[in-house]
Amino acid sequence: MPSVITLLTDFGLSDSYVAAMKGVILSINPEAQIVDMTHEVQAQNIDQASFLLKAAYRYFPPETIHVVVVDPGVGTERRPIAARAGRWTFVAPDNGVLTPIVQAHDDFQAFQISERRFMLPRVSRTFHGRDVFVPAAAYLSLGTPISALGPLVLDPMLLALTPNPDDDTFEGQIIHIDKFGNCITDIEETKFRKWTPGSVTIEAAGQIVRGPVDTYDDAVIGEPIALFGSAGHLEIAVAQGSAAECLKLRLGSEVLARRRAG
Amino acid sequence: MPSVITLLTDFGLSDSYVAAMKGVILSINPEAQIVDMTHEVQAQNIDQASFLLKAAYRYFPPETIHVVVVDPGVGTERRPIAARAGRWTFVAPDNGVLTPIVQAHDDFQAFQISERRFMLPRVSRTFHGRDVFVPAAAYLSLGTPISALGPLVLDPMLLALTPNPDDDTFEGQIIHIDKFGNCITDIEETKFRKWTPGSVTIEAAGQIVRGPVDTYDDAVIGEPIALFGSAGHLEIAVAQGSAAECLKLRLGSEVLARRRAG
Amino acid sequence: MPSVITLLTDFGLSDSYVAAMKGVILSINPEAQIVDMTHEVQAQNIDQASFLLKAAYRYFPPETIHVVVVDPGVGTERRPIAARAGRWTFVAPDNGVLTPIVQAHDDFQAFQISERRFMLPRVSRTFHGRDVFVPAAAYLSLGTPISALGPLVLDPMLLALTPNPDDDTFEGQIIHIDKFGNCITDIEETKFRKWTPGSVTIEAAGQIVRGPVDTYDDAVIGEPIALFGSAGHLEIAVAQGSAAECLKLRLGSEVLARRRAG
Repeated sequence: MPSVITLLTDFGLSDSYVAAMKGVILSINPEAQIVDMTHEVQAQNIDQASFLLKAAYRYFPPETIHVVVVDPGVGTERRPIAARAGRWTFVAPDNGVLTPIVQAHDDFQAFQISERRFMLPRVSRTFHGRDVFVPAAAYLSLGTPISALGPLVLDPMLLALTPNPDDDTFEGQIIHIDKFGNCITDIEETKFRKWTPGSVTIEAAGQIVRGPVDTYDDAVIGEPIALFGSAGHLEIAVAQGSAAECLKLRLGSEVLARRRAG
Repeated sequence: MPSVITLLTDFGLSDSYVAAMKGVILSINPEAQIVDMTHEVQAQNIDQASFLLKAAYRYFPPETIHVVVVDPGVGTERRPIAARAGRWTFVAPDNGVLTPIVQAHDDFQAFQISERRFMLPRVSRTFHGRDVFVPAAAYLSLGTPISALGPLVLDPMLLALTPNPDDDTFEGQIIHIDKFGNCITDIEETKFRKWTPGSVTIEAAGQIVRGPVDTYDDAVIGEPIALFGSAGHLEIAVAQGSAAECLKLRLGSEVLARRRAG
Repeated sequence: MPSVITLLTDFGLSDSYVAAMKGVILSINPEAQIVDMTHEVQAQNIDQASFLLKAAYRYFPPETIHVVVVDPGVGTERRPIAARAGRWTFVAPDNGVLTPIVQAHDDFQAFQISERRFMLPRVSRTFHGRDVFVPAAAYLSLGTPISALGPLVLDPMLLALTPNPDDDTFEGQIIHIDKFGNCITDIEETKFRKWTPGSVTIEAAGQIVRGPVDTYDDAVIGEPIALFGSAGHLEIAVAQGSAAECLKLRLGSEVLARRRAG
């Protein structure tokens, strides 16, 4: 059974950077099965990368190794890490991009990638994806124990958690816009449901949006609605249209839920 | 010999939707060989998806399973189907996207995907690609008989067929524009050749275009020409240029052939 | 151990052209491991394709077959070739796109692909990628000796070499812009270092740029710098910004190094 290695980067597909990473993987483990998570993360946008990882990693088979290379700190002292959580392994810079994984898995355990023999012989200053991260992933896929990569990391960096509500309002922002123009926020369904079982008013960039509704079905064409998407985040959508265009939303736009009396 | 599963969607590659589908496939059949057909179909454009499928499916090995998820009706009562035709298998919503396959293969036989055990345990209302279509494809790739998925479908939905000529004119439209700006119409070579062996005048969005010519070779640089492309459809091209830009053509633009007195 | 075949084209990913090529490969060699190098080369831009190939091919395992289909001459008499160089094999039109490979490997040896039995039964005039190049690659991956494809090619086409400096100036141009807006030139580090160990002034499209610096680290945010990238070419970058946007650079923009007195 071939090992699956996924790649999530902000490199795009118009360069041969991603291809070079795949070449390195196959040079170390010719049997690896490589899957692109996406390479279209906004440059250095760690929040977006976290969300896209969170939305998909659980659908991969046990023992899949998820590699994330969204790395504003390349060339600085930030640590490269490999982590085990649930049934999966993660390889990433220690910049908080794995925060949702830390939150979801009590057994999260990370190791610094410091052993040179698990890197390419020559490590450039600008391309650790190729020289450090994917070699580590490829050696792990061959059975190298994760603790062989380097010392235990007891203090992995955590991002500001997704927002929490106050008494009357729950304020979040757009962290991802999908191809259909659906705008995904950082408001998590679990926190939202605990906050209020009652009725709320939702505003996206100041415009009132109906919801949260259960499905797209009862929306009139062109009507903006809010609903919880398959990754458990509140999203703003427009039935058969693009919420991003209709409501002029962009990454960072504010989304607000207010409790209504009664 | 690994089973090949292809994916043709309108999901784009900037989300992790396609990756989640691949994760589901590999969770069910770790040996599957997954190939992207394309994910850049215009949102919910069934005609374009049909054409892109038609242009490529025959180049895949026997037993390849082609999955199409262009699905305006997700969440409604439209049926998910799996079909056998020629040497290939197809998995798609029953919305007409397989019309060219039905037309090309007398042995086309479709089954509804209704058995819950061949879906993910939790089926969302918005993402049947992940929860219904690719699990079915993955189980088929493991040897599940197609008839085990659900009941026979005797009335698969068919799209309006590609257009037929009348006495003097053959009227079609642009259904796909490729990266080079070549504009592919829904006018099929087989119908065209039967209609007229004589000379015609071709107009694209009202502009006269020379052709159908046999090859690009005799065209002057910048000259608009019409020719039959490798998928057997009339296309409008400009030698070393973009027909879409030069002639301001877009999806839906009219293309007309008129018989000349002869 | 599966054979790796990479694909580098200007076909983009919004059509099913690339998929058809993969289908052909898997029909001939179902065990092939296919990797996309990139498909976003500017239409018919041989210089850019050469650079992207040069930047990545060495990272692939020995025996990898690199296929390049950037082919302005499709349908004309230009020869399709297969070549052996170092530990890799290359399949491409004989239009100079392999120039960096010829320069880097004294053992470069090319053969014309002329034997019809290694092509698809029907060879179209417009899509040799599918009908000629990938079938040859797939047969090679099965163990077909390269000399079986056709006669030895003693005079492979070479592009104008990358530029050489004159006494006082070294003049190059932008040949690739990556997703981050870094602008890669055709000025090679090896030639540059031989030309001058002393100090130079670098201009990109007439604007002075500091460098060549060793790393991004000492740059002020927003400052334009020049440095040698991981493929050994001089590139223009802006710390945490896009050099292409900030300096209004595009493919073909001039980059000039001048020796300074002293």
